Amino acid sequence: MALIVAKFGGTSVADIPAIENVADKVVREAENGNKMAVVVSAMAGVTNQLIQYCDQVTTIHDAREYDSIVSTGEQVTSGLLALALQKRGLKARSWQGWQIPLRTDLAHAKARIEAIDIAGLKQNLLDGEIAVVAGFQGINDQGRITTLGRGGSDTTAVALAAALGAERCDIYTDVDGVYTTDPRIAPKARKLPKVSYEEMLEMASLGAKVLQTRSVEMAMKERVPLQVLSSFNPELGSELPGTLLVDESEVMEKHVVNGITYSRDDAKITLRNVPDIPGIAAKVFGPLTASHINVDMIVQNISPDNRSTDMTFTVPRVDLAKALDALNKMREEVDEKVEIIFSPDIVKVSVVGIGMKSHAGVAQTMFQTLADKGINIQLISTSEIKISVLIHKDYLELAIRALHTAYGLDKEEDAIS
Amino acid sequence: MALIVAKFGGTSVADIPAIENVADKVVREAENGNKMAVVVSAMAGVTNQLIQYCDQVTTIHDAREYDSIVSTGEQVTSGLLALALQKRGLKARSWQGWQIPLRTDLAHAKARIEAIDIAGLKQNLLDGEIAVVAGFQGINDQGRITTLGRGGSDTTAVALAAALGAERCDIYTDVDGVYTTDPRIAPKARKLPKVSYEEMLEMASLGAKVLQTRSVEMAMKERVPLQVLSSFNPELGSELPGTLLVDESEVMEKHVVNGITYSRDDAKITLRNVPDIPGIAAKVFGPLTASHINVDMIVQNISPDNRSTDMTFTVPRVDLAKALDALNKMREEVDEKVEIIFSPDIVKVSVVGIGMKSHAGVAQTMFQTLADKGINIQLISTSEIKISVLIHKDYLELAIRALHTAYGLDKEEDAIS
Repeated sequence: MALIVAKFGGTSVADIPAIENVADKVVREAENGNKMAVVVSAMAGVTNQLIQYCDQVTTIHDAREYDSIVSTGEQVTSGLLALALQKRGLKARSWQGWQIPLRTDLAHAKARIEAIDIAGLKQNLLDGEIAVVAGFQGINDQGRITTLGRGGSDTTAVALAAALGAERCDIYTDVDGVYTTDPRIAPKARKLPKVSYEEMLEMASLGAKVLQTRSVEMAMKERVPLQVLSSFNPELGSELPGTLLVDESEVMEKHVVNGITYSRDDAKITLRNVPDIPGIAAKVFGPLTASHINVDMIVQNISPDNRSTDMTFTVPRVDLAKALDALNKMREEVDEKVEIIFSPDIVKVSVVGIGMKSHAGVAQTMFQTLADKGINIQLISTSEIKISVLIHKDYLELAIRALHTAYGLDKEEDAIS
Repeated sequence: MALIVAKFGGTSVADIPAIENVADKVVREAENGNKMAVVVSAMAGVTNQLIQYCDQVTTIHDAREYDSIVSTGEQVTSGLLALALQKRGLKARSWQGWQIPLRTDLAHAKARIEAIDIAGLKQNLLDGEIAVVAGFQGINDQGRITTLGRGGSDTTAVALAAALGAERCDIYTDVDGVYTTDPRIAPKARKLPKVSYEEMLEMASLGAKVLQTRSVEMAMKERVPLQVLSSFNPELGSELPGTLLVDESEVMEKHVVNGITYSRDDAKITLRNVPDIPGIAAKVFGPLTASHINVDMIVQNISPDNRSTDMTFTVPRVDLAKALDALNKMREEVDEKVEIIFSPDIVKVSVVGIGMKSHAGVAQTMFQTLADKGINIQLISTSEIKISVLIHKDYLELAIRALHTAYGLDKEEDAIS
């Protein structure tokens, strides 16, 4: 008999009718002979309301109190879903993080799961009871409630699936799977039946917001078959209607590129006339690190005179002002000849595919395609399975559609016409 | 150094400004050198919202899930108050029932406190930390969250004060103390600086809604000095501005009657021509008990012919229809000659006073006062320290004001004029 972990996010449990809909799905899975452990988020809006209360009291939170307060959102949903399942004649109970217990480290508001004592949970599952687990939360060695940070309920679900040796972990959300690219931009985007963990990890960190990076990392490490599917479609997880995250060897798609992602959240900074002396990079980036600014896509060129260097990199757009402030101070200390040029009007477009490992010419296709459309590439950064470029934001849609076609990802019916 | 337990109810923590006000009070008490354990209710309206969610899912609740859901209201308030205290520079932390732990029996939704393990709590108090305790909740032997039922946070506070050996338990609420009678009805009502546990117990069960009967019972049993005071007045509990519940021997007031209470929540039922045979009372009241209807003020008269009897009693007005239904069935079984007469148009007026134990004529004053005003007494019931009468509801205000004057309870300035 299979054990399935199913996770339902905030929009899937937004209100009582939505919770009833979730209960219907769980009942049908259970009636198919599956043991079910269900992880739930807070009802949509509840967590924000609780955070707002905290912010109204004080902007400097004691994270222990913050965690205790915001964890109540999942506590409520778990109880309500248990009631809805009982109403349908099934045995069900809610489990809070501290009841399982799901043990975490001491890092409040962004705790990491250390261990899950599954004994009690497993016994009840074997007795035919559905476990409704409050996501996003655990308990630390000091007996305090911790929360797992953004996307924490996904992580709860994956960790639980790993600990229980579940056949599959179904992440029900408001999209019906992982697409080759954003269908709102490219109508010819296709849903991928399978995608490898590695590709999903790149896509998640490059801006595809379907899954949090951390839960994908954990699924990859623990080899948990993870499915992304919609809670608003009639299909069950068992019918595999979504996108399944699997080992590289199990991906049947024969495309070298499986996904095209983008991010509108970055800004570009270029430093000119930086003195080319040992330790200069540390001097430049030190102040940014000290200001907790995440620097990405760093490229350094030697200038023609061999005495100075140019550096270009991206920072999160929300941190641009803070970054410029830090860099201005650096400039005063290092060399007043350093020029700072910046632009928020850029987007990052990336192509991702396991196939790149064994295929040459993938980058060339990207550069040629963009060149054919007259799109200037401002910065390039690559890894084993992805190529990212910075381009002017006005060309985002054009670039994505052109690349989608160039890599043979368009829907077949559309490709024919 | 004194340890004080302070409890703040739902209106006292209704929103963030109210919670800030509570924090100010607690800080001032702490600055006066007191160790503080603070018990909080849910923010006004929150518990009702949570109950409504449960009701929307199913009207037949699993009380274990219900308890887990509704207990989150207090969890949120306790965290927010801890944050507000920290903002003011004090050490503070929240304690959930399961964290203390506060152990209860298994009776979900109306659990009774069995033990409080104060070790952890006490250590933190000694270290100068303010304990903010989520009221209304505990944990049972099965590791599930329990709630204590109506007025549960008052009970939490009294139990905690008893366990910690607190100097006093201050119940902050939206009234500034216990009055000789309802000031909305009798403007000459006076606030009592002290009242005995026994009197308060009678007054609470007779309709004075300041404190729940259960918390008064516990305070009496454990001899906890309990003060009722307003959270909206500037005074602190240490200034003793409210009404203090104390031992009979400590009550200084020299009135034989200390309080006049009333209840509009009852209905009167009279059964005529009931056959006067052994076991008839059990036959009459059995069906009411089976329907969970609380019968009060039972009076039985022998009829002139000595063969039948009349019975009069009260039931909660909300249960009147259910009671009549049960009695009709009884009538068909016992004797069709039984007549059922009922009236919802009655009120119960009671005078309460420790002084009755040693003073004669207290009842006579009541009967004469009502007779002088032409008010007909429909039913009388007495205990050692109270006399209750049923009268027509139209005479409620008149009766209360007349009795208040007759027993010498009117404010002095008014009595002089």
